[in-house]
Amino acid sequence: MNDIHGGDIYRNRVTCDFSVSVNPLGMPEGSIRAAKQGIMRSGAYPDSLGMELRQALAAKEHVKPEEIVLGNGAAELIYALCYALRPQKAVVTAPSFSEYEAAVTASGGDVLYWDLEEKNDYSLKEEALSFLTEDIDLVFLCNPNNPTGSLTHRSLLLKIAAACEQAGIFFCVDECFLPFLKNEESLTLRQELKSFPHLLILRAFTKIYAMPGLRLGYAMSANRQLLMKLRLSMQPWNTSIPAQMAGLEALKEKDYIRRTRQLLARERAYLCGEMADGLAERIYDSSANYIFFRSRSDLQERLLSDGILIRSCANYRNLSEGFFRIGIRTHEENQKLIESWRKWSSTLRRTETWQNQL
Amino acid sequence: MNDIHGGDIYRNRVTCDFSVSVNPLGMPEGSIRAAKQGIMRSGAYPDSLGMELRQALAAKEHVKPEEIVLGNGAAELIYALCYALRPQKAVVTAPSFSEYEAAVTASGGDVLYWDLEEKNDYSLKEEALSFLTEDIDLVFLCNPNNPTGSLTHRSLLLKIAAACEQAGIFFCVDECFLPFLKNEESLTLRQELKSFPHLLILRAFTKIYAMPGLRLGYAMSANRQLLMKLRLSMQPWNTSIPAQMAGLEALKEKDYIRRTRQLLARERAYLCGEMADGLAERIYDSSANYIFFRSRSDLQERLLSDGILIRSCANYRNLSEGFFRIGIRTHEENQKLIESWRKWSSTLRRTETWQNQL
Repeated sequence: MNDIHGGDIYRNRVTCDFSVSVNPLGMPEGSIRAAKQGIMRSGAYPDSLGMELRQALAAKEHVKPEEIVLGNGAAELIYALCYALRPQKAVVTAPSFSEYEAAVTASGGDVLYWDLEEKNDYSLKEEALSFLTEDIDLVFLCNPNNPTGSLTHRSLLLKIAAACEQAGIFFCVDECFLPFLKNEESLTLRQELKSFPHLLILRAFTKIYAMPGLRLGYAMSANRQLLMKLRLSMQPWNTSIPAQMAGLEALKEKDYIRRTRQLLARERAYLCGEMADGLAERIYDSSANYIFFRSRSDLQERLLSDGILIRSCANYRNLSEGFFRIGIRTHEENQKLIESWRKWSSTLRRTETWQNQL
Repeated sequence: MNDIHGGDIYRNRVTCDFSVSVNPLGMPEGSIRAAKQGIMRSGAYPDSLGMELRQALAAKEHVKPEEIVLGNGAAELIYALCYALRPQKAVVTAPSFSEYEAAVTASGGDVLYWDLEEKNDYSLKEEALSFLTEDIDLVFLCNPNNPTGSLTHRSLLLKIAAACEQAGIFFCVDECFLPFLKNEESLTLRQELKSFPHLLILRAFTKIYAMPGLRLGYAMSANRQLLMKLRLSMQPWNTSIPAQMAGLEALKEKDYIRRTRQLLARERAYLCGEMADGLAERIYDSSANYIFFRSRSDLQERLLSDGILIRSCANYRNLSEGFFRIGIRTHEENQKLIESWRKWSSTLRRTETWQNQL
């Protein structure tokens, strides 16, 4: 089974997909309508400047439109950043989203790892600062981290940003999952952009507005020269009309983010409660819209036979068989997951009991 | 006015856009329906392998699915190819589509020019072969060329391909406009892929299926190693679900290409007839779905005051003020263009007559 990224719903029979981490509320109705209107307008080229969307984003993010570059998903911007900077040495946490490393490699650079440890719940510690020497060109940090859900707190983020600034290292903070957190505002580095010209923040509509199939992300920085290089490293028409229009409409949503966070809080409590009751071996302190945990290593395979796909994290550096991530879904889907898991778990217990009696 | 690429409909009042060169029939109805269904499925990630579409393309193009890589428009593939190969020196024709040069520059390479001459109707001549020395890494050739519409014929294409093969030069032929031509099959190099492992062909749904706003293109080569590098130089989810689904449906069209070619033949005759009747100064022998011509240098500005946008080609290397390209549109739109043009032309003649009498 191909599960390099999340699960592969295109080559597996899947009815519930917990392998991806997108908003369980689904794409806002307004965005769906706007994207469909966008199809009707797609006989024209997209606005290569994405001006309307960038203006709306600027208003939301309290930055200038010139401080925003749009991407065909945040993933495109990860590659574009590496092509723009051509880092010889880049630092990524391990484990983390594998595209940082893939992009550094594609642009001809080498990757050094900030090894995250289980004893720290896979969160980054202050010792990481000693890595930031002048031979490093670029640092990627996902906050909260994917797949572990671990947070890097503001005080450490600021120290990293300052150390990067001092050493001339570009610092890319991927905040794609941050809007799922109630304390988003106290964790984002957005208001620090002006203080750190080497800082670039990645954000996406993909996760929080549940539109991974449309592809839309953006980068923010106060460094106009960096943004110009980033923009010129991509084709002019990188974001489609349906994506731009869906994004624009998503920004008009009034209550969607609040409802999202409420649902996640409730369902995280439900899932963690059930999982702690004899299912998972260990549940890590994970933020955002997913739960990172350890379990029997055949869990993915067993759930898949019920059409439920979860993300095995065995192929991440510093993780191994038995580490998993599930995106929190609707209550109905979460119940299905727990039911299937309990069924396998009790079958297994009966088998073990039987074997022990032999 | 920003007209780096075609015209900028987003910052001009435009009712008829002749500045882009897409199929005047518009996106096939089936593709529109499929793209809208794709919006509904966009809560999932796109298939990063694009398997269903690649299989359908393989059947149409008589190649293997493994010999196809999908792109977010052909434009993405131009950049990806440059990032994959990192050419130090690349050759492009001048004039030609400006993204070849932009991509070579973005990847850190230098561009050499095959200068096309007006005396040859801007078509490439055999002398171009002398350029293909071993210090060249990559050649881009658009056939028919954009914006001139000039064709490079099969015999010369084969000589270039052979010379590239001998010198270890990658040869990228952009055939995005070729499906508009009745003699497409006698001009494409698709059946030569096996003979030339350094050959890569670009194609797009953008132009022939009129879906520039959705972004979908593809590359074909018999060189699996090249395609693997190309694929790894881009994010895994580069083509959206609506684009993949619209493309898949477009390939099922039975009569669309034939109707397209009929319309273009009829409307080219109409436009060229009218333009030759006292409007254009010179009309070049241009193929595909556009007409390349010379006229008074204020033509774009004058037509724009009637909401009609045409492409000024003044910013192309080896062209200057007074060179224009129009995409052939529907008869109704073409009539509007001619009417507006005649109006300005006769106003001008009256003014001149009056001035001469002073």
